[in-house]
Amino acid sequence: MGNERIATESDDTAAAQRRGCGPLHPLRGDSDASVAPLRQLIFESVRAEGALSRVEIARNLGVSPASVTSAANELIGAGYLEEITAPRRDAEPTVRGRPPVALAVQAGAGLVAGLKIAAATNSAVLHDFAGNAIADVTEPGVGNAVSPDAFDSIADTLLTTLLDRAGRTRAEVHAVGLGLPGFIDSAAGTVLWSALLDTAPVDLRDRLATRLGVPVVIDNDANLLTLAELWFGDGRAMGNFAVVTIEHGVGMGLVLNNRLFRGARGLGTELGHTKVQLDGALCRCGQRGCLEAYVADYALVREASTALDWDPSELVGSGRMLAQLYEHAKSGDPAATSIFRRAGRYLAVGLANVINLFDPELIILSGERMEYDFLYADEVLAEMARAAIQVDRPAPRVEIHAWGDLIWARGAAALALSQLTAQRLGAPGVLEDT
Amino acid sequence: MGNERIATESDDTAAAQRRGCGPLHPLRGDSDASVAPLRQLIFESVRAEGALSRVEIARNLGVSPASVTSAANELIGAGYLEEITAPRRDAEPTVRGRPPVALAVQAGAGLVAGLKIAAATNSAVLHDFAGNAIADVTEPGVGNAVSPDAFDSIADTLLTTLLDRAGRTRAEVHAVGLGLPGFIDSAAGTVLWSALLDTAPVDLRDRLATRLGVPVVIDNDANLLTLAELWFGDGRAMGNFAVVTIEHGVGMGLVLNNRLFRGARGLGTELGHTKVQLDGALCRCGQRGCLEAYVADYALVREASTALDWDPSELVGSGRMLAQLYEHAKSGDPAATSIFRRAGRYLAVGLANVINLFDPELIILSGERMEYDFLYADEVLAEMARAAIQVDRPAPRVEIHAWGDLIWARGAAALALSQLTAQRLGAPGVLEDT
Repeated sequence: MGNERIATESDDTAAAQRRGCGPLHPLRGDSDASVAPLRQLIFESVRAEGALSRVEIARNLGVSPASVTSAANELIGAGYLEEITAPRRDAEPTVRGRPPVALAVQAGAGLVAGLKIAAATNSAVLHDFAGNAIADVTEPGVGNAVSPDAFDSIADTLLTTLLDRAGRTRAEVHAVGLGLPGFIDSAAGTVLWSALLDTAPVDLRDRLATRLGVPVVIDNDANLLTLAELWFGDGRAMGNFAVVTIEHGVGMGLVLNNRLFRGARGLGTELGHTKVQLDGALCRCGQRGCLEAYVADYALVREASTALDWDPSELVGSGRMLAQLYEHAKSGDPAATSIFRRAGRYLAVGLANVINLFDPELIILSGERMEYDFLYADEVLAEMARAAIQVDRPAPRVEIHAWGDLIWARGAAALALSQLTAQRLGAPGVLEDT
Repeated sequence: MGNERIATESDDTAAAQRRGCGPLHPLRGDSDASVAPLRQLIFESVRAEGALSRVEIARNLGVSPASVTSAANELIGAGYLEEITAPRRDAEPTVRGRPPVALAVQAGAGLVAGLKIAAATNSAVLHDFAGNAIADVTEPGVGNAVSPDAFDSIADTLLTTLLDRAGRTRAEVHAVGLGLPGFIDSAAGTVLWSALLDTAPVDLRDRLATRLGVPVVIDNDANLLTLAELWFGDGRAMGNFAVVTIEHGVGMGLVLNNRLFRGARGLGTELGHTKVQLDGALCRCGQRGCLEAYVADYALVREASTALDWDPSELVGSGRMLAQLYEHAKSGDPAATSIFRRAGRYLAVGLANVINLFDPELIILSGERMEYDFLYADEVLAEMARAAIQVDRPAPRVEIHAWGDLIWARGAAALALSQLTAQRLGAPGVLEDT
C-alpha cells in the first residue's frame, strides 16, 4: 500500500461546487468543471443509510434508475457495494415476485483507523468500510510537547496496539485519520502550531504516512469531534451548529449548510484564541486576553494554587488540582467558587459572540471538562443569553455532550473513510485502478 | 402593481441547494426538489457580463446550446432579454456570414429603486433592469428614532424625490430595496430592532409595500454594502471576505463561498455587539462591553465632552464634535489622542476575532468614519495582526473603502433587482404571468 495523498474536506467543497453550488453570478463559478461522479454519491448514500434499493437511490439523488444501475454495477464489480436482501419496511406494500434487493456497503472492502493524540489521553478506533467499529484503544496522552520523531513513534505504537487488539494487519488498513489540538491546515497536511509538538510547522501528514506505511489525513481535533456530531450525533438532523470543546484548550468546530466550515484559508474557527479582554490574561499562545486563558484547564490551575494555598513547587497533576478545586467550590469555598464563576462568565461571553456572529441553531458543549457542571450552570447559560443580541427569538439551544474520548477517534476514522471514498470514487477513471 | 412578496437572498440559498449544493450525505438534501430554472441562470449570467452569445452562455453554464436557445427565446418573448449585435472581441477570429448576435438585458423592462435610510444621511438610486443608474438623491437622515408611520413617510418622500429627479413614474418601479441599520430579518421582512424606529418589532416590508404601492425587500445596511462589494466592487474576484462598516454603529457583512452569509436563523453577523470586555462600556443596545460601545460615533462623542471640556448641555452635532476631537488629536492633545487610540485598539481586537473565527481572504473597512485615519493607522493594523493567531501566513489584507453614501443605496437596488429576478424567473410558470 503506497502513501498517496488522501483528498481532504476542501476537495469535498470543490466537489460540491462542481455539482453546481456556484456563486450568484454563474459565470464566476467553475463553469467548465464536471459534476462529481454519480458512483461517489451512490456510495455515500448507501453508507449513510445502511442499505438502499436502486430505486430508492435514484429517487433520493434525482437521477434515472438506469444510470444508478450502471454506476452501482461498477461499484459492485470493484468490491465497494454488495447486493443484499432488502430489509422489509412496515410501510411498504407487499409485492409479488422475487424478494426485493438492496445495496449495502461491502464492509470487508477494507479498514480505516482513527487516532486522537492529545496531552491527557490518546485513543484509537478501527472501522470497516461500512463504518462499523471493530476495535478501540485508550491510553495515557503525550503530556508535554514532543519532537516530530517522538510523535510519529507514539502514533505508530498506537496503531500497532489497535491492530493487535483486533487481530488485523497494517496491510488491511486503507487510511488513517489523525486528530490533534492546534492550528492544522488539513488540506496541506501541515501542523502550523500544536502544543503537542516542540517545533512548527510540521508536515505531519506526509511524514506520518511514510512512517506508518498507510495514507494519512490530519485535522484539528475539534473539527473531528464536529464531524462525529455531523455523522453520528445530533448534527445529523441539523444544518447549522457549533461544537465548543473544553479540555486543555478551548476548541470549536462549525457546521454551516451541513458542511464543516474551514474558513477561506483552511484554518477554520479558533474560538479559544478570540479576545474577550484587551490586555487580559496571558494565554499559552503568547497573546493576552484569549478566551482559553480564562476557561481552559491551565487557566484554572494557575489560580488554584492561590485559592488552595498550595505550594507551587509541589508536583500535582492538573487533573487532580482541578478535581480538588471543584470539590472546594462545591463545599462553598469563596476563592474556589470565584475561579469557576469567572471562567463561566467568560465562557458565556465567548458563546454569546459565537451566537452574534454565526447565529447557529444549536451549540454543543463537549470535551472532558463537561464533568464540571459550573461550565454549563444555569447562570452561565442565562448570562450567555443576556449577552447575545436581544431579538424576538430565544437564544440557540445549548446541549452538553460529555461523550468519552473515543468519539474524537471515531471522528478521525470517519474523516479517513470519507476522504478515502472521495479519492477512490471521486476522480474519473480511478475506480479501475483499485 | 401589487405588493406581492419579493423572494429574498435565503431563497437564493435554497436555489443553490436545489442546484445540488447539498450536504455530504445526499439523502439529507432536498432530494426531490427540482433544479433552479435555466432561464434565471441565463438572465443572471447576461446581466453580470453585459452581453453574451448563446454559445457563450451554454459553455459557461455547462448546458446544451439547444436548451439555451429555448429558454432564451422565452426570456426575449417576455421582454427581459433582447438580441444585439455582439461586441467585437479582439481575440476572436473573424468569421464569415451574418454578424454575431449576442443577448443583452432589455434595460427598459422596468426600474428598481434602492433606498438607504440612516441617522445621518438618506440616499436613493434608480436603476434600470440592466443595472444602470438613472438618478440618485442624497439628503439629511432621520436623526433620532421615529415612529413606523413617520419612517414610511420618509421613505415615501425619498422615492418621490428620486422619481421626480428622473422624470419617471412610480408605476414604472418594479421593486424597492431598502437598507437600514439594526437587526433585520430579511426573509421575514421584519425589523427586529433598529435605532431608527421607536418600536420593535416592525413588519416593515409589508407596511412599506402597501404605503409605496411597490413590492419591497428590506435588509441590514451592512449586508447591502457587502452585496454592493460583491456585485460591483472588489468582491467580484473574491469568494470569502468581510466588510466592516463604522458609522453611528459598527456593522458587518460576510461573504462565504461567494454568498452573503446570514447565519442559520437569518440574522447574520452582528460584530458591533460582540463583547470585547466583560462588564465593559455601556452600549446603545443596553448591554455592556460591545465593540460598538468603544468604536462607534456615540462612544467617542461621550468621551469628547470630557476631553474637550465641553459643557454637556451645549447642543453640538456629533459630527461636529467628532471633527473637533479629531483636530485636537491631530495637534497632539493627549486626552483626544487617547480616545482615538483606545477606539483603534478595540477595533484591532474586533478585527482579530473576525480573522480567528472566519479566516477571510480580505477585510474591507468602510463607512463614513473612514475619514478618520486613526481607525486604520499602521499601529491599529499591526495590533490586529498581533492579536490574530500566529501561523505561517500573513494576516488577511485590509482595504479601506471610503466610498460615498450612494454605494449603500446601490446595494439596496441590486438586492431589489436580484430578488425580483429570482421571483419572476425562479418559479415554474411565473414567466407567463408577467
